[in-house]
Amino acid sequence: MAAALNEFELIRRFFSPLSAADENVVCGIGDDCALLALAPGEQLATSVDSMVAGRHFPVDADPGKLGWRCLAAATSDLAACGARPLGFTLALTLPSADESWLAAFASGLGEAARAFELPLVGGDTTRGPLTLSLQVLGSVSAGAALRRSGARDGDHIWVSGSLGDARAALDLLDRDIAGLHSGQALLDRYWRPQPRLALGRALVGIASAAIDVSDGLAADLQHILECSGVGADLHAGALPLSDALRHHYSAEQATAYALGGGDDYELCFTAAPEQGARLQALALELQLPLSRIGAITAAPGLRCTDAGGRPLALQYAGFQHF
Amino acid sequence: MAAALNEFELIRRFFSPLSAADENVVCGIGDDCALLALAPGEQLATSVDSMVAGRHFPVDADPGKLGWRCLAAATSDLAACGARPLGFTLALTLPSADESWLAAFASGLGEAARAFELPLVGGDTTRGPLTLSLQVLGSVSAGAALRRSGARDGDHIWVSGSLGDARAALDLLDRDIAGLHSGQALLDRYWRPQPRLALGRALVGIASAAIDVSDGLAADLQHILECSGVGADLHAGALPLSDALRHHYSAEQATAYALGGGDDYELCFTAAPEQGARLQALALELQLPLSRIGAITAAPGLRCTDAGGRPLALQYAGFQHF
Repeated sequence: MAAALNEFELIRRFFSPLSAADENVVCGIGDDCALLALAPGEQLATSVDSMVAGRHFPVDADPGKLGWRCLAAATSDLAACGARPLGFTLALTLPSADESWLAAFASGLGEAARAFELPLVGGDTTRGPLTLSLQVLGSVSAGAALRRSGARDGDHIWVSGSLGDARAALDLLDRDIAGLHSGQALLDRYWRPQPRLALGRALVGIASAAIDVSDGLAADLQHILECSGVGADLHAGALPLSDALRHHYSAEQATAYALGGGDDYELCFTAAPEQGARLQALALELQLPLSRIGAITAAPGLRCTDAGGRPLALQYAGFQHF
Repeated sequence: MAAALNEFELIRRFFSPLSAADENVVCGIGDDCALLALAPGEQLATSVDSMVAGRHFPVDADPGKLGWRCLAAATSDLAACGARPLGFTLALTLPSADESWLAAFASGLGEAARAFELPLVGGDTTRGPLTLSLQVLGSVSAGAALRRSGARDGDHIWVSGSLGDARAALDLLDRDIAGLHSGQALLDRYWRPQPRLALGRALVGIASAAIDVSDGLAADLQHILECSGVGADLHAGALPLSDALRHHYSAEQATAYALGGGDDYELCFTAAPEQGARLQALALELQLPLSRIGAITAAPGLRCTDAGGRPLALQYAGFQHF
């Protein structure tokens, strides 16, 4: 048996390697504060995301997958406001210093940190029930951040990638049929979400409002509507559904997952109709589908119609924490 | 019985009032990211602190006191690097949305936020075992931050306020004699620590290294020594002990608490000998005692002598999280 690790050894062994040298990181792990330099004219964008074992992920979740997923989910908020990544901090509460768990978690977290160019700049490691809290830090030109409040009557509503896959993955896990070959694509959407950082940055100056799809399209779009004081018509037939989702589920179920399921971490955004051509060019450039799924209305409320033009009832409570 | 609060109502009722308008806060609670403006030439200083019920505070802790203490403890890291407060985020994991607990917690937290001029700019509220994770954000002139790495041979070692009081408070709580009149001063030191923000900012340009006393003087000073590649001689007879601590404990026990006890959130710093007069003037100006407690040596290691010049054994493991 190895001797129990103390906090400092634990940080040195598993987390210091994630603290890459960087022009923005003046001081990373190992002092009272991390020090970050922003370029002139830039503002700080920051967001915090907590994940609790047994609530946001299974207690016995693969730690490597968990490492990727928790950083990807947090980073998605930087994408949603069009920010460039600067770094992140990790508050990690652990039942015990299990070295194999820590090595796998740090490996998945580090893989994501490199992929998103987001070095670890600080953190706190405490003992207790498994809880992860990640704070992401980014920068955006002053006044240029994408906000929830800019949607205007007549704007088109767009979404990136495909929707509903992560929700379907949870269903497959519940039914223990995730091992099916075609289910892997859905599971990957749940465990390896891709924050749309390049898209978010490209949308600065194009999109009028944006949000990431974490709680479910309808619930998240509702935040844009409330913040902007507008309503929306959604066209369910236009929702982007993956082949894997269509393969496993009826059209009706797939649509329900796309509207109500969370965890996809795509971007939902609004833009004036004349931006359509630029957005289509952007989709090609980023090799990321962008689908026009509806329009903003002056009339409040969120309405949805199916492919035949019939109203669809929406359940968009999103993820209820309490 | 009131209906259960959902996350958004909970934030609106209890936490949005802590999000004060401010020249630095471009966007606070309610979007994907908070947006903060730094003055030209400033760098971001940030730190995260987690506290777990049953480990860092009693499960049945008074929520109002807890609110003050958790923000004060986190803010102390800004003080230690000489930063101006910008704002903070709160990741709050709660077993249930207990409204009276939340109201009291938000009240204590808000009192501290106003006292430290640190508006709440974002957060995440999740359900699970009670865990608080606070990220503080501040700014400091580029290159001016107080660091742990600047102590030099011959520098004097200083500490603010008094030491050992918070550790004594834990002892009084354990022995259930905290109700004694003179014990209240010690309890206040535990529950209402005062981050030394004004001192930290004033030390920029004076101190060669600084740290806040969170794990205990000997353990925290050890971080300065390691980061600076130096050693130190401490004079136990010079440690600042409060009247309350002296009243309740023998000189030997009081000294042990001052050297080994944590949670005081004073600043320990080093400065060249010629800064002594400026530091004495600063103590008067801030009405905060500053005590010279030893000197930095080229020889590595931390040595401590008692008032008679005899070596004192040091136990400075600090707070062991695992």
